[in-house]
Amino acid sequence: MPTLRLALCQVNPSVGDLTGNADIVRAWSRRAADAGAQLVLFPEMVLTGYPVEDLVFRRSFVAASKAALDRLATDLAADGLGAVPIVVGYLDADGPPQVSGDAEPGRGARNAAALLHRGEVRITYFKHHLPNYGVFDEDRYFVPGDTLTVVRLGGVDVALTICEDLWQAGGPFAAARQADVGLVVSINGSPYELNKDDLRLPVVRRRAAESQATIAYVNMVGGQDELVFEGDSMIVAPDGTLLARAPQFVEHLLVHDVQVPPAVDASEVADGDRVGDGLRLVRRTVEGLPPTPDGPAALGGVIEPVADEAEVWQALVLGLRDYVNKNRFPSVVLGLSGGIDSAVVAAIAVDALGPDRVVGVSLPSQHSSEHSREDAADLAKRTGLDYRIEPIQPMVDTFLANLSLSGVAVENLQARVRGVILMALSNQEGHLVLTTGNKSELAVGYSTLYGDSVGGFNPIKDVWKTLVWRLAKWRNAEAARLGGTPPIPENSIGKPPSAELSPGQLDSDTLPDYDVLDPILIGYVDGDLGRDGLVASGHDAAVVDKVLRMVDTAEYKRRQSAPGTKISMKAFGRDRRLPITNRWREDG
Amino acid sequence: MPTLRLALCQVNPSVGDLTGNADIVRAWSRRAADAGAQLVLFPEMVLTGYPVEDLVFRRSFVAASKAALDRLATDLAADGLGAVPIVVGYLDADGPPQVSGDAEPGRGARNAAALLHRGEVRITYFKHHLPNYGVFDEDRYFVPGDTLTVVRLGGVDVALTICEDLWQAGGPFAAARQADVGLVVSINGSPYELNKDDLRLPVVRRRAAESQATIAYVNMVGGQDELVFEGDSMIVAPDGTLLARAPQFVEHLLVHDVQVPPAVDASEVADGDRVGDGLRLVRRTVEGLPPTPDGPAALGGVIEPVADEAEVWQALVLGLRDYVNKNRFPSVVLGLSGGIDSAVVAAIAVDALGPDRVVGVSLPSQHSSEHSREDAADLAKRTGLDYRIEPIQPMVDTFLANLSLSGVAVENLQARVRGVILMALSNQEGHLVLTTGNKSELAVGYSTLYGDSVGGFNPIKDVWKTLVWRLAKWRNAEAARLGGTPPIPENSIGKPPSAELSPGQLDSDTLPDYDVLDPILIGYVDGDLGRDGLVASGHDAAVVDKVLRMVDTAEYKRRQSAPGTKISMKAFGRDRRLPITNRWREDG
Repeated sequence: MPTLRLALCQVNPSVGDLTGNADIVRAWSRRAADAGAQLVLFPEMVLTGYPVEDLVFRRSFVAASKAALDRLATDLAADGLGAVPIVVGYLDADGPPQVSGDAEPGRGARNAAALLHRGEVRITYFKHHLPNYGVFDEDRYFVPGDTLTVVRLGGVDVALTICEDLWQAGGPFAAARQADVGLVVSINGSPYELNKDDLRLPVVRRRAAESQATIAYVNMVGGQDELVFEGDSMIVAPDGTLLARAPQFVEHLLVHDVQVPPAVDASEVADGDRVGDGLRLVRRTVEGLPPTPDGPAALGGVIEPVADEAEVWQALVLGLRDYVNKNRFPSVVLGLSGGIDSAVVAAIAVDALGPDRVVGVSLPSQHSSEHSREDAADLAKRTGLDYRIEPIQPMVDTFLANLSLSGVAVENLQARVRGVILMALSNQEGHLVLTTGNKSELAVGYSTLYGDSVGGFNPIKDVWKTLVWRLAKWRNAEAARLGGTPPIPENSIGKPPSAELSPGQLDSDTLPDYDVLDPILIGYVDGDLGRDGLVASGHDAAVVDKVLRMVDTAEYKRRQSAPGTKISMKAFGRDRRLPITNRWREDG
Repeated sequence: MPTLRLALCQVNPSVGDLTGNADIVRAWSRRAADAGAQLVLFPEMVLTGYPVEDLVFRRSFVAASKAALDRLATDLAADGLGAVPIVVGYLDADGPPQVSGDAEPGRGARNAAALLHRGEVRITYFKHHLPNYGVFDEDRYFVPGDTLTVVRLGGVDVALTICEDLWQAGGPFAAARQADVGLVVSINGSPYELNKDDLRLPVVRRRAAESQATIAYVNMVGGQDELVFEGDSMIVAPDGTLLARAPQFVEHLLVHDVQVPPAVDASEVADGDRVGDGLRLVRRTVEGLPPTPDGPAALGGVIEPVADEAEVWQALVLGLRDYVNKNRFPSVVLGLSGGIDSAVVAAIAVDALGPDRVVGVSLPSQHSSEHSREDAADLAKRTGLDYRIEPIQPMVDTFLANLSLSGVAVENLQARVRGVILMALSNQEGHLVLTTGNKSELAVGYSTLYGDSVGGFNPIKDVWKTLVWRLAKWRNAEAARLGGTPPIPENSIGKPPSAELSPGQLDSDTLPDYDVLDPILIGYVDGDLGRDGLVASGHDAAVVDKVLRMVDTAEYKRRQSAPGTKISMKAFGRDRRLPITNRWREDG
């Protein structure tokens, strides 16, 4: 069987940075060519970054994407890389942007892949299956393609597909079998979700079986607003054997030789024929590949996925690092209460940016306990971040002297004075403010609007409180295992959670214990279970009613919260859009 | 020709309030029956409210909607209204909620209409055309219906359709002609946009021509988060004649007798046949209508749409009133600077809620001019709202004594102290905080994050600054015309805009004049024009570059802003989703 040396380029583009992304493609194509690659693959929409959202409707942006693609083809040839076929994702359009229900059928923007060779765009493919659930709105933005696009390369037939094409049965993979394709390329912008790596390999295997072809799956890596792309690129044989797999959460060049059956000239379907799912077969031949390199076969290796806590930690670190760097913030600032949430966020920030780019501010009030101040200082010492102390009492007292406030208004005032101080430091010194509310708090609205929710990014927005604790323990154990200093004070992990906004206040005064609360929230939010379903699964009815009432009335606070890295199927903000004005109550 | 007395019930339901909405249907059905109606029509999803967004995925909510429909049918019969056929919109599902790309084809939630008669659900129709653009995400939520549903009522054939079915050519209206239908019912949840009333009548006329039938179009009225439904229900004859038209922005019972040709027994298409657009014809007969009433024919009358400024003002008043009342806030509070934006918001609030439910707070600093304080006091006197003065200087000085701040950090500090005071008053006294930034400010990010942007609702979020001035002048002229007191001080309208955060500061120090700025913003935001398109249409290139750069880097501020009533095709927040992390710059 012919051998083809593949290079899967698991790279990290930035949305909107057409020039920078093209430079990434050129640099990595050089590396791939140096490794003898005969076919080089880049992720979905690598040229524009993904997702571009409403930039799709800007004609100037679509035109720039198409111009950048043509220029990239020329530049690659000028770089001496013209002989190597290179597949890149980009934004195309075969008509003006279509934004209303009266759009002309079949015309509009396209989520596209191009094969570049010898200075030219040799063929393009338009994504057939468009996802329109969860974080995806592609029915809004794109018109589906209706071709099975097959390129004959070095004597083998290669079909092009894009992301969602893989996640639905039928479509181009089934059609590829009809056309006797030997290799199916799948270019992806597939966002991270906890345990998605466990789903991905079985899906790739199903498509390998369906197409009876080798699958080369390349995914993006990096953070984009609330999304993190994890990489996890892989190559799977027709029989389901995992031939090579890249690591998660880092850029990686996966070079691997695959054996592909020679193209069948007597295939039952010919160029222009209709194959399955209404697709029209489009065949092209690209002549003159680089020769098969001498020497030993290239083996990409198989990286095993890491454990859950490690995976989440890496996702949160990468998500924060890219948010900060791609938005060009020099540094971050956060309030350190001595509690577990701010300690974990600080540790993530230090892992993402280094201690020199992290400012931690202790903001004690008259209700802050001695241990809180000590734990904050201890964290600062362990991590080496830039530590400051700004007592809030003088400002709080001035407000109280000028306004007649009591109860919750006084509690919230303290959180808001802290927010004003952090934003002032941000304005004065240029830091991005990190906010540190966990998903359990966000779900029930246990936070101060425009107080502790102030900030530009929240690394643990999608992390349930019980998982925050697990992450802290895992990170400390990992440090101990590697012979370093555990970053998070044991006190911060062990003590009962408190907002410390009134004397002796504990979270448990207002909320059920988190061991009780989190399973209810997970059922209601992640599982879309109703009140009766939750009670039937063993939760106390009165507790369920109380919790659901809190969740149902906190939508406004959730909408006003900062963005944060998504790690679940149901992240607030990105995936879940409930009405604010909503009279529906599960308990009637 | 047979005469049918129609009652179009232009009512105001609340999302999630199944019991309250059913009560509305019962009360208005009583009024319609008392007026002799033989067919009563309610808006799209009147039983659940619209849009319900991700409540669709909650099984308990879908089950509750279906149970509420059955109960409503029974209750109407018990009310003695069983003989009257009543059409209501509701949420149905013929399978579990489907949320992923692997959803089972044809099964899932439905945007549905039911005809109730004699205590039963006699027939249902599922919306065929699902909108998935602008504010609509119906491809996410619903599975399209595939029937043309025709009911024989009192000897005439009536087809049922829902909202978007009307806005696209083909589909049920074209099919209705094949089935010789005499009347097409269109039930709607069609949100307000400036000038949409000018589009609606021509579209209804096109469908009347297409179906060769009379069209009975009933639309919802009222506010739901950022949407306002305007009513504008109407009846149009097959030849395009406007027979009756309800007013905008108020609840209304439109009762009108229509002449409809008798049903054709020899129609070419029969029950179960396929008609156009793949629709399957479903026929039902409902026997025993109320008799045609004696006495004069019912005439609904034709209300002329109002002028633009009046229309926008009414939309903003209704949007705010329903946001406040449906979320059960007793009152609102806002900062009064003496400037035009807060003056217009205060006038809207007083029109929406009455002066007793509006608190205006003057929050002067050392940079506040004497005329600003006087203009705020003048506004309070003119409108009769609850007026207070809370000087911010003591709090600002305490922050400055404890932190080392300069420049923009000091400017923003003042706005943030104001935000803390308004939120403290909200917590202490229960008011909803209104924020008052106009769309031009929001577009270019000319505001303080967590400062003047603090609040729960912004009535002028979607109003360009130049339109704010036009609205102020219109409202004052309207008051003068009616012999009342113009609410907005002439000083607030006439003086140059200033944030008054530093000595002598004017908006024009930072921004182009609004007469220059707004047309550029309208082209870029509403028109999706690029830099070159804007320059080609006559704008100064340097000004365009400066403005576009400001817009492109302000997405985070826009995302953190409060919701506000949408009046345009491209409202920030609801319609426009740009990446925050975005390196695209129109000027390269």
